[in-house]
Amino acid sequence: MPDIIEIIGLVASFLTTAAFFPQAIRTIYRRDTSGLSLVTYLLMTVGVATWLIYGLLIGNRPVTVANAITLVPMALILIMKVRLG
Amino acid sequence: MPDIIEIIGLVASFLTTAAFFPQAIRTIYRRDTSGLSLVTYLLMTVGVATWLIYGLLIGNRPVTVANAITLVPMALILIMKVRLG
Repeated sequence: MPDIIEIIGLVASFLTTAAFFPQAIRTIYRRDTSGLSLVTYLLMTVGVATWLIYGLLIGNRPVTVANAITLVPMALILIMKVRLG
Repeated sequence: MPDIIEIIGLVASFLTTAAFFPQAIRTIYRRDTSGLSLVTYLLMTVGVATWLIYGLLIGNRPVTVANAITLVPMALILIMKVRLG
């Protein structure tokens, strides 16, 4: 049985991994990128891709999987921001 | 001397920790929250706070420091989104 600290880590991981799907869905459907920072989504897309490489290199499955999932909405939002300005 | 894998982890950590300061600055100065997802910033603020608690509980300084820093822009963006809609 996982202990309370492990559960807290899993909850944290779930929240931050899920968080950018609503933003990506909103941005794709409304095509409203006016309030979004290009620099933020550039840094996040490169940053999450770097975490993914790090996870693969150290052989850590939670880091690899969480960042592979998070990369999807980040890259989609970045593409929308680049296309729509 | 840190090895290449440790450097990749440090770069990833720096990028994702720095990323939301440009978004917070943009949102505060332009007062434009129309493109921002409330759900995303709620999940991120609670998620990053949960990571911070997890970092404190396991006594991991990089996790604690990175999430304490990231909590600042996330909470600021959330406050702006709640106030401006």
